[in-house]
Amino acid sequence: MKICILGFGAVGKGVVKAISLKNDRFKEKYGLDLKVVAVTDTSGAAISNKGLDLDLLLEIKEKTGKVSNYPGYGVSGMSNMQVLENAEYDCLVEVTPTDICNGEPAKTHILKAFEDKRDVVTSNKGPLALYFKELNESAMNNGVQFKFEASVGGAMPIINFAHETLSSCDIDSIVGILNGTTNYILSRMAKEGSSYEQILKESQELGIAETNPAQDVEGIDAACKTVILANSLIGRDVSYKDVEVIGISKITPESISLAKNEGYLIKLIGEVSGDVLEVSPRLVREGSPFAVDGTLNVATLKTDLAEDVTVVGKGAGPLETASAILSDIISIYKIKQCNG
Amino acid sequence: MKICILGFGAVGKGVVKAISLKNDRFKEKYGLDLKVVAVTDTSGAAISNKGLDLDLLLEIKEKTGKVSNYPGYGVSGMSNMQVLENAEYDCLVEVTPTDICNGEPAKTHILKAFEDKRDVVTSNKGPLALYFKELNESAMNNGVQFKFEASVGGAMPIINFAHETLSSCDIDSIVGILNGTTNYILSRMAKEGSSYEQILKESQELGIAETNPAQDVEGIDAACKTVILANSLIGRDVSYKDVEVIGISKITPESISLAKNEGYLIKLIGEVSGDVLEVSPRLVREGSPFAVDGTLNVATLKTDLAEDVTVVGKGAGPLETASAILSDIISIYKIKQCNG
Repeated sequence: MKICILGFGAVGKGVVKAISLKNDRFKEKYGLDLKVVAVTDTSGAAISNKGLDLDLLLEIKEKTGKVSNYPGYGVSGMSNMQVLENAEYDCLVEVTPTDICNGEPAKTHILKAFEDKRDVVTSNKGPLALYFKELNESAMNNGVQFKFEASVGGAMPIINFAHETLSSCDIDSIVGILNGTTNYILSRMAKEGSSYEQILKESQELGIAETNPAQDVEGIDAACKTVILANSLIGRDVSYKDVEVIGISKITPESISLAKNEGYLIKLIGEVSGDVLEVSPRLVREGSPFAVDGTLNVATLKTDLAEDVTVVGKGAGPLETASAILSDIISIYKIKQCNG
Repeated sequence: MKICILGFGAVGKGVVKAISLKNDRFKEKYGLDLKVVAVTDTSGAAISNKGLDLDLLLEIKEKTGKVSNYPGYGVSGMSNMQVLENAEYDCLVEVTPTDICNGEPAKTHILKAFEDKRDVVTSNKGPLALYFKELNESAMNNGVQFKFEASVGGAMPIINFAHETLSSCDIDSIVGILNGTTNYILSRMAKEGSSYEQILKESQELGIAETNPAQDVEGIDAACKTVILANSLIGRDVSYKDVEVIGISKITPESISLAKNEGYLIKLIGEVSGDVLEVSPRLVREGSPFAVDGTLNVATLKTDLAEDVTVVGKGAGPLETASAILSDIISIYKIKQCNG
């Protein structure tokens, strides 16, 4: 199976590293041999239809910052669209930076791959939070597969869990802690009694929160994930603008302390149920599956037969996110095997 | 797909009720039409190769206590083995009472079904905790499928989660709260500061602990589940007698209180890792995924790519356990569809 990877930041590198680590295992376990035939970054591309040397690719990127320096097969200035035009690939891994205003350039890449009858796996929230229906319809019309487990909580595999593992159940609603940074900040506020500003500053110094933290602390990231879950798990047709969002920046140590005295914690919760589609700070009970701290993500599926079932996992991290992308690729491979 | 159900206690009735509730949905979603062609209890059997009326079956059982009273197709005194000999079924659902000393009569039923080239789904811990390898080899040799998600934590679907959803990951170790009754007792001791004896007594009055609570409180049930996870998820070849087991009956309110002051809780934990195969009371950190209370079950898979991934769900309950059995049946159906 030939893979084309657009974008070579943390996630793209994680995917290449994970394939390098596990390809022998996939051959043995599934008969699946993954070849990476193209990788792009802002410098251009490395492209070889015989497959790139993954360890060399990672080394070149680390040393020079540019995949276009890949010996023999590097092409400086080659665009993502040119790569999609020229690479002989089976499955696109779309991991360019997310834009939640217009979903580009990921949306164009994904639609181009579909039109060329290629399967797509992505971690890219932007196009999914804005154009979920359009993208899925295009995949269906072109008879290809489209999977995006990694777009919601890197290593908290809730979408495939609902579709595959809970196949006997219908999902009534979803409630989750869908952003690791805000969980980290709120957990430390609860433990230390410090102010939001203080913990945010320390989180930024630790590299857990970004210099511009709005995406996380204002609930934007969690809102995108809430939309993806609403559309993919309970058949809603909603977009990012439909979510009511309140972030965590106004939460005081006093309110956290008051909650704590009554056996509750405050967490930033995304909810999809009935007419509700929102992200907001909520009280969760100590002793409940939502009372996890650190950067963990949690999602609870309320089901008809199994009642509440919860998955907890790391929301981010290069190999963690790669695990979801590779599980999606394996799933596509299995379905193709099945369809002959 | 024709189903034969041996055993008509809480789980068997749950399966019939769940099929009655969801069969139309399965037809629409998967093209799967389930027919229950035989059901047994200690009175005998109801058996019809055209399929039994599920609501009538539940009504007869509730009113008379005997499936053999099913009008027209009830057979008083018909044994499970006679049913396996006479019913035209595709998949056996083995849900007779568990015996953890010899795994019977479930083991004999399962092997008989395999020899007759029938798939088997079971929630029965006994045969799995004692004869895992023998049963799986027999299934493989006969070219049939054998699934047992419901044997470990009714609605905490950890086995299929590991195999399907985490397909890119290898599992290094498993740590879990695998028994709901002990979690309930320990959670209440922590909350109320009462003694083990006091809370056990109240749990028995509430029907959460059994009159003879040894299976739960001595860790026997958790040990069986630990063995099943060791064998099915990380390829060990162990049996119930290989587990080191310590129960919860010697835990004092003082030790719980001491732990609590340091930010820890005491839980009965099953662990499979390296050479470790044990069930014992352990300290777990507040804020970790193990800090859940009530009768919930939890299992954390330590993986190579995704680090720790955790599933939390209800460990028991008729419909909850049925959800796992039906997901297994759907999974068998999909594989059969795929193999043509």
